[in-house]
Amino acid sequence: MAFIQSNRMSGVSGSIIRELFKMTAAPDMISFAGGNPSPDTFPTAEMAAIANDALLHRGASMLQYGFTEGFSPLRDALKSYLKGKHGFPKEGDELITVSGGQQAADLTSKVLLNEGDAVLCEELSFVGVLNTFRSYGAKLVGVKMEPDGMNVADLEQKIQANPKAKLIYIIPNFQNPTGFTTSLEKRKQIYALAQRYDLMILEDDPYGELRYEGEFLPPFKSMDTDGRVIFGGSFSKTMAPALRVGFLVAESSLMKRMVVAKQTEDVHTATLTQEICYRYMTEHDFEGHLKDIRKLYAVKCKRMLDDMEQRFSPAITFNRPQGGLFVTAFLPEGMDAWPFVQEGIARKVACVPGVAFVMDPSVPSNAFRMNFSMPSLEQIDQGTEILGKLTYEWCK
Amino acid sequence: MAFIQSNRMSGVSGSIIRELFKMTAAPDMISFAGGNPSPDTFPTAEMAAIANDALLHRGASMLQYGFTEGFSPLRDALKSYLKGKHGFPKEGDELITVSGGQQAADLTSKVLLNEGDAVLCEELSFVGVLNTFRSYGAKLVGVKMEPDGMNVADLEQKIQANPKAKLIYIIPNFQNPTGFTTSLEKRKQIYALAQRYDLMILEDDPYGELRYEGEFLPPFKSMDTDGRVIFGGSFSKTMAPALRVGFLVAESSLMKRMVVAKQTEDVHTATLTQEICYRYMTEHDFEGHLKDIRKLYAVKCKRMLDDMEQRFSPAITFNRPQGGLFVTAFLPEGMDAWPFVQEGIARKVACVPGVAFVMDPSVPSNAFRMNFSMPSLEQIDQGTEILGKLTYEWCK
Repeated sequence: MAFIQSNRMSGVSGSIIRELFKMTAAPDMISFAGGNPSPDTFPTAEMAAIANDALLHRGASMLQYGFTEGFSPLRDALKSYLKGKHGFPKEGDELITVSGGQQAADLTSKVLLNEGDAVLCEELSFVGVLNTFRSYGAKLVGVKMEPDGMNVADLEQKIQANPKAKLIYIIPNFQNPTGFTTSLEKRKQIYALAQRYDLMILEDDPYGELRYEGEFLPPFKSMDTDGRVIFGGSFSKTMAPALRVGFLVAESSLMKRMVVAKQTEDVHTATLTQEICYRYMTEHDFEGHLKDIRKLYAVKCKRMLDDMEQRFSPAITFNRPQGGLFVTAFLPEGMDAWPFVQEGIARKVACVPGVAFVMDPSVPSNAFRMNFSMPSLEQIDQGTEILGKLTYEWCK
Repeated sequence: MAFIQSNRMSGVSGSIIRELFKMTAAPDMISFAGGNPSPDTFPTAEMAAIANDALLHRGASMLQYGFTEGFSPLRDALKSYLKGKHGFPKEGDELITVSGGQQAADLTSKVLLNEGDAVLCEELSFVGVLNTFRSYGAKLVGVKMEPDGMNVADLEQKIQANPKAKLIYIIPNFQNPTGFTTSLEKRKQIYALAQRYDLMILEDDPYGELRYEGEFLPPFKSMDTDGRVIFGGSFSKTMAPALRVGFLVAESSLMKRMVVAKQTEDVHTATLTQEICYRYMTEHDFEGHLKDIRKLYAVKCKRMLDDMEQRFSPAITFNRPQGGLFVTAFLPEGMDAWPFVQEGIARKVACVPGVAFVMDPSVPSNAFRMNFSMPSLEQIDQGTEILGKLTYEWCK
């Protein structure tokens, strides 16, 4: 029997990245292709002690069905943490925990998007969430990206051209893949546009804590007076990804529908992993832990950028991210980065081609994404050396 | 700003059960309303030791991003367990782990169902999964339920009446809420109908291990020659629900699409909770543990049924389930069980009214569901005593 898949799934494929990961699995490959945090940042001993204690002494509450809204102590800890740092959740907002930041995008899509609705996305943007939008039959509309965020004129023009525009999707800090951060000025302008055209904003902020230079900027959610911003956060980069714990802040009547949607998907997020986040946040030096992570990545980030400046052909352009896990470099306009990346892999250095992050993968992209959190400093030196030579060959 | 929710979510509400749980939270309430396994069945000490050891000694692999398909050792252990017990996965099938049994229904819906497609369901059926189907805009078609499973003539008639019929949804063992088990004869007939009309079957089996009497019956999946059966299983009742670990077996080309769908929802299931299931299954006496659970519940089940036989008015009908967590009783035809359940709650005994489990909640149901896994034997005695009196008052 050949099954017939739903229309909504027919536009979703993950093949390029999958093919790529197969190619990069060779043991002598230097990989800048991943998006993983460094395992050196995982507080494993503390987590082991928390898990052991919680299961031994409060097993029933760790293991019985929990609330869809999340584990209450963690929700309370997150509310007070975000309130202190950013001034929200405000009156009329609610916070729930979710099964990783990805689920924040999924619940947003399920509750808000009809098939054919348009989502305005940074072009390039994170393929995982683009696929979530695709899986609900949404139309992706790419907005031109600049080092300080979306081109606002292009955003407005695209909104006007798409009467079914419903949602703006933004990764405001150290965006994946570009590493770009939306400036305060643009945050205000984009929020004003959302108001003018009555759009929702999904603010996806997995990297916000990972700032190595410059000033923290206020989230869209902190300037939200209308309940139109949905804020998604994650422990994947501040604790560990395989715990699969994230959180979501939204206006409470919208949140009620998201909770019903979550119930239909996975009932609730695992309690033990929420307990680990909760107790690490409240019983250990969470701020000190974040500082340590920033210190580790700051060194790798600087090394990657300095190496690129020294070794890459001047024909290659890139911006210096102030945080996050990634930098994206661009071949000269009109070139396709996919054969460049393939040649890099042949020489044992892997990156991700920009085509993985575009709205329409049939159009070539001149971008390639490089990750600096996973490789060692030595690997960064070796890999950029090899890629640097390749850029000179490619841009003769 | 008032947000406009998607069409697909407009038909989904969980309000009756939510209202009910608020009412049943009183400390002196005897609750037969839950669906929880008994915390006495959770192997907390073993889980604590596993979690501690895994995080201490293999922290990086427990905590880094994992495969969407699941944690390989657990997948292998499940494959060999199911193969030994049921003869599948067969050649051409694949098994993945999911974030609880609920996600098996969600991925099935996302990949197979277009808005307007019809799903044939046992009427009554589990509201959580009915809401999953609703959340993808599917049309629910109820099929008359008998103590040995769906009425097969009614199933065929409903298939013929619904040209967009795509999926049959069945909980084959100790069904929620009825406690009914589909007989071997009917399994064969229903599978033959699925072949004749080219339908898929979602076989949702969270209770299959909880048989207290009689013989284990072969799953639909074990007789599936066409790849049309999707089998969903869960550790919620055999290990613990808040681990949120389930599994899914399906034909491999379909499974590839489900894996892409899962990636858009939660990337992968938490690794630590999968490790706990894996090592408990393989390093501890899992079979002995299942026997202990069956022994505990068998006593509660028998007590509930014996009490009901002695104390309920003969006007009340019910079947003796041979396993699971639930028995559903029926008021005389035409009566509405909702005011009956409300009066029970006023007298401090809670059940769930059948209206929570129907396709169309605007039509009254004469059923009420009683859970026997959570209450103590004393509570079962006291609660059935009170409800028994009520049945005589109600059916004068």
